[in-house]
This record gives sequence, C-alpha cells and structure tokens, in this order.
Amino acid sequence: MCNELIQIGNPDRIQNFIEKIKEKKPLFICVIGNTETGKISGISAAGANPEITDFTPAADMEYLHFNRCKSIDGVPVTPDGIPTPALITKAALDLGDIPYMVVVGGAKILPKTPYIDLGGTFGTNISSGNAVKNPKKVFEKARLFGENISKVANYLVIGESIAGGTTTALSVLLALGYDASNKISSSLPNNPLELKLKIINEGFKKKNAKFGDFKNHPFKAIEYFGDPMQPACAGIVVGAANKIPIILAGGTQMAAIAALVKLIDKNSLENLVIGTTKWIIEDPQSDILDLVKQIDQNIPILGINFDFSSMKYKGLRVYEEGIVKEGVGAGGTSIACILNSKNKISIEKLQKKIEEDYEKIIMTPREERRFGPH
Amino acid sequence: MCNELIQIGNPDRIQNFIEKIKEKKPLFICVIGNTETGKISGISAAGANPEITDFTPAADMEYLHFNRCKSIDGVPVTPDGIPTPALITKAALDLGDIPYMVVVGGAKILPKTPYIDLGGTFGTNISSGNAVKNPKKVFEKARLFGENISKVANYLVIGESIAGGTTTALSVLLALGYDASNKISSSLPNNPLELKLKIINEGFKKKNAKFGDFKNHPFKAIEYFGDPMQPACAGIVVGAANKIPIILAGGTQMAAIAALVKLIDKNSLENLVIGTTKWIIEDPQSDILDLVKQIDQNIPILGINFDFSSMKYKGLRVYEEGIVKEGVGAGGTSIACILNSKNKISIEKLQKKIEEDYEKIIMTPREERRFGPH
Repeated sequence: MCNELIQIGNPDRIQNFIEKIKEKKPLFICVIGNTETGKISGISAAGANPEITDFTPAADMEYLHFNRCKSIDGVPVTPDGIPTPALITKAALDLGDIPYMVVVGGAKILPKTPYIDLGGTFGTNISSGNAVKNPKKVFEKARLFGENISKVANYLVIGESIAGGTTTALSVLLALGYDASNKISSSLPNNPLELKLKIINEGFKKKNAKFGDFKNHPFKAIEYFGDPMQPACAGIVVGAANKIPIILAGGTQMAAIAALVKLIDKNSLENLVIGTTKWIIEDPQSDILDLVKQIDQNIPILGINFDFSSMKYKGLRVYEEGIVKEGVGAGGTSIACILNSKNKISIEKLQKKIEEDYEKIIMTPREERRFGPH
Repeated sequence: MCNELIQIGNPDRIQNFIEKIKEKKPLFICVIGNTETGKISGISAAGANPEITDFTPAADMEYLHFNRCKSIDGVPVTPDGIPTPALITKAALDLGDIPYMVVVGGAKILPKTPYIDLGGTFGTNISSGNAVKNPKKVFEKARLFGENISKVANYLVIGESIAGGTTTALSVLLALGYDASNKISSSLPNNPLELKLKIINEGFKKKNAKFGDFKNHPFKAIEYFGDPMQPACAGIVVGAANKIPIILAGGTQMAAIAALVKLIDKNSLENLVIGTTKWIIEDPQSDILDLVKQIDQNIPILGINFDFSSMKYKGLRVYEEGIVKEGVGAGGTSIACILNSKNKISIEKLQKKIEEDYEKIIMTPREERRFGPH
C-alpha cells in the first residue's frame, strides 16, 4: 500500500485515520455547481469550449449514474479532447461498489439524475464582486444534510465538479488572507495565473477590498468572491465531521474548503484528510502542501499514486503531463476504493478498469452514446 | 413488545423481519408531493382549508428539520385544528436519533429544507384523467437513489406526505383492478367516499376506461389517476428492497405502493412490511387488512399500538376518534424508534414525548413560531 498511496503529514494521525476507514464502505458525495467565472475564455479546461463548461458538472454526474451523459454528447473533455476525471471516479465507484449522491450547491444546468437540492443558485463572474447569493442559507441546509447522513454512512468522500473552481478557490483563499497566488492548481497544463488574478483583482476593486480583509468572514468571502459549491461542501463537512471521518476529495479547491471550515468550526478539521492525486501533489505550478500547512499543518494529505504513462491511449497518458490532474473526487474515490477492498483491488487493477472504460467511451458511436444502447 | 406492536401476518415472517432490523439504525425517507386533487373541498383534512393543503407537505418537512415550520405559521392542522401526524414522527425521530431525508416526487410548494429532487412535477386533479407527468422517469431516478442508499443504510422507513393521497391511492388501486372502494382510509373522521368516487369516475370517463383496465400497466395507472408521490416511493422500494429491509410507513396509501411494486418487481415485496398505526388497522371505515391480502397475503402489517385516550390535550385525545390516524410515516417511525432502542424506549415514553412536543407547539406564541426563538 505504501507505493499506492502518497502520505503527507503526521504518520500516527494518518495511520489512525486509515484504521478508522479501512474496509468500511464510504458514501461518495459529489457537490456540483456553476459559476460564470468558468466561462471566461482561458480559465477552465472543464469543457471543449467555454460555453459548454456550464454542462460539464451535470454531464459528469450523468456519466456516474448511467455510464453515459444525457446533457451532452459523449463525455466532458478539455479543449484538447482529454476526457473528464469522472472517468477515474466512475471506475473507482464501480470497482469498489461505492454508493454515491449528487448535491447541487447552485447550478445553471441541472443533472438528469437524482440530486439533493439546497436551494442555491448558480454563481456569477467573481469579477463582479457579487459571486454567490445567500451562501449562509445553503451552508445551513448542507449542514443539516451532513448531520443526517453522518448517522447513516461510515465515512464520506466529498468531491466536486465546477468549472472555474480553482479560480474561485484562489479568490476565496486570498480574501481569507492566505498566501495562495502561486499555489493554486489548474485543469489546464499551463496555469493561467495572470488571467485568474486579473479577474480576482477586478472583484476586489468592486468591493473596495484588499486580500485578507475577510479573514474572519468566511460567508462574506464566498458571497463576494467564491462559488456555489463552496458553502454546500463546507456545510456537509461541518454537519458530519464530528461523527464520521471525511476525505475531502480534490486538489487545491479542497484547501479552500478546509480554510472555510477552519473559520466556521475548527474542530471539524480534526476528522478529515485531503485525498487527491499524485498529479496535484507533484504539480510544479501549484503547492497544495504549503496551502494546507498555512491552514492547519495537522491535516494529512493522501495522494493516489497513479501512473498513466503506460496506458494504451494518449488521452490517458497525457494525465502524466499535468493535464486535468483531478476533479469529480477522482483521487479520493480511488483511495477509498483501494483502502476498502481488503487488498483485493490494486492500483493496477483500477488503472486497467480506467483504460477499459476509456476504450468503451471512444469506441461507442456518437448516436449510441446519446441515446443509449439499442 | 407484544402490547406495543400489533402484528398481522405469518408470525415466522414477522419475527424474521424484526430480527433483521432490530437494534439497527434505520434511515427515514419521507416522500412528498402535491396533487390538485387534495384541494377539492372536502377531500383532505391535511390543512385548515383546501387552499392551504398545498403547503402541508413542505411544512411537515420543515417541522421535522427545524421543530417549526417556515412555509406556514404554526404547524399543519385539520380544519378542526388537530395537528399534523408529523408531530408523532418528529418525536420518534428525535427519541430514536433516527436520520431522515426528504424526497420530492413532484411539488408545487417546495420545503425550505434539503431535499432530493427527482425531476417530477406536481400532480393535477385526477378528475382530468391526466394526473402525473412522466411517472416512469421519476420512478427510474428514484430507483437509482434507492440502489445507492441501500448500500449505506441498514434499512429504510419510507413515509409520505401528500394531501389528497388517499383519493389517488384509491384511484390507482381501482385502475389496477382491486376491490378497494370501501377499503381506503381518510384523514377525515367521516370518509368522504362518495365524493372520492365521483372524482375518480370523472377521470375514468375522460379516459374511456373501466376499473381494472390497467391491471398490467402500473405507470399508466399513475399517469392517468395517481399522484407524484407514488412513482418516487415505488422507485425507492424497487431500488433498495433486494438489498435491505423496508418498512412502508403509512396506511392504505402504502397498500397502493405495494400494489404498484408487485407489478414492477414482485420480488421487492419479499423484503418489506407495512408499518402503520392502530388507528388505521382498527378503522371501521377502511380495511387495510383486506387490501393487503388482495395484493399479497404474505406482506406483514405492523401497527404501533398507541393509546392517546389519556393524553392531557384534546388535540391528541381525538386521534382515538379516528381523526388524522396516520401520515408522514408516523406509525412506521414509531415502530422503528421502539424496535431500535434496545428496550430503552417504551411506547409510554414516546407518547410522553409527543405530549410534551404538542405542549411546546401550542404554548409558543405565533410570532416566535414563525421566526424562531430569540
């Protein structure tokens, strides 16, 4: 397992966490949302073009439920045609027989799946300085859901799908006063950091605010500069973490959630880890280790140690070049799949399944993808 | 326990079911919806007047979550001021520390709580012969949710809140060919059976159909003459029952669900019981025993053996006169609360809690009820 799982943090704390969740069935919760920020040209790779990124979270959820998308043809891809990390997530959920639920923090395009509604609305462009309506209300509903689900599930793996989410994560971390400018990752191979900061600065200017002005105001930070995934995700964590362990499944976006949770209910941080991929941990253009250290150095980071370099298909091999990297809880669900398998599922087996699923997608004719097999 | 629980059916099967769920924590799922049928004057007691019945399911869910309603002032009451059975449900959930979720089958008024959306729309008056849009789609989403939740929960207690639901249950049972006319209960002390049948006959006339014409067409029966709670409820059962036990928590409305499930996936009936109240089982104006016998004589019926005759308040004592009787999973959650308490919670203790909660409601000034305590 040592080779399969990168472990960063206090070894006792990590061991203790793993003992708590090992061989237990998790519940995967994917929190989705839309922010207009994701549609700014050059910001997000979560869609073949900016306009279609609105459909990406819904399509990701449909892929998890139906093995095909209903809101778009095919599966979400980057502008270069690289498939959504939901491919990895789906393989992990299937192999591990892991149940899942969709939570909508606020979306323009709703998935054609069952989903939990928290009364949120989609987010606007953060350059407006008015990003999310009523984040506190959404948080409170999410907290209630988290409380209830914590009495049923052994532990939670919480992922996200929101195009533009790394930009809004950066924005919130800056509002809260973190040194985050060079530390947030991107779904694009070349992190468009300058563009991100330009948009963020516009938003702060609109509010006559400086970085750090909201270091004690998590909900204001979300309201002005965040995205609708954030209050939903933070609420579930705060509702559930005092009862069951949580894997925050994602890259630097989940660092922003941890930073918000720290301000709302610090104790919740004691029962969680960040679970992500090797590609995030080793990303030269971001620094999740330092971000987490700034928030709370005791939060462990676990990373699934994938190696896609020998994959049959280029669309998967390029993950090794830092394209996509993470999303839809790909890293966290993979970790859960392996930890809960009683050593039956190796990382090789999971990678094999990902390859097979990818093959199925590219081999399926367009019409059949859309309407299902005959 | 014998005195606390009325048991009807094969004793071995009942014992076997109880063994499976005993001392395990359930998940309570309340499926809500609206049908315009509920707003016909004289049809439903689920609201002080017909117009307000639209708000009753949402208000019931708010009471479960917040101990007070947000969509209406106070709690839902009958035209005579008798409080909603959600009062019983809430006491059982609280005492038993039972988690819960709201599922919306199709509603005009959505609850200000987290809820699972299945893409359904509210139902129209069944006299139109076009009661529910796309019941199959809602069913399929509910089935997916049921499948997922069955991997997390030990067992389910599934209740409902939909004003007009006994009329739509009767209508569907008649469409499926059951001898049900004199056997469906009512929230009103005097079952308005003539009115119910008049409305139902209008619907059948619009479709040029006879009772029994849909005995092999469960989804057509719902589409023409049912309500939006039904496909959601049936879907959850079919999705979950092959993995975990289910208490269908309700009166004769749940008989209609069992009848639908029988046609869609007969095997699902093997892992469920109907859990209700003494007031339903002993109701001289309905006959759940015969209904269930017609559907599948092997389905056990459990009834919580409440005795409200010594309650301090008239609003509770009148339950003994057959007013309200059941709803919001009151009977099933009470059964689960007692069975899972390791003999710590007696029926007396539960009744005491119901009395205390009732007292709190009637003692709370209107303004505070609405806006919460200061």
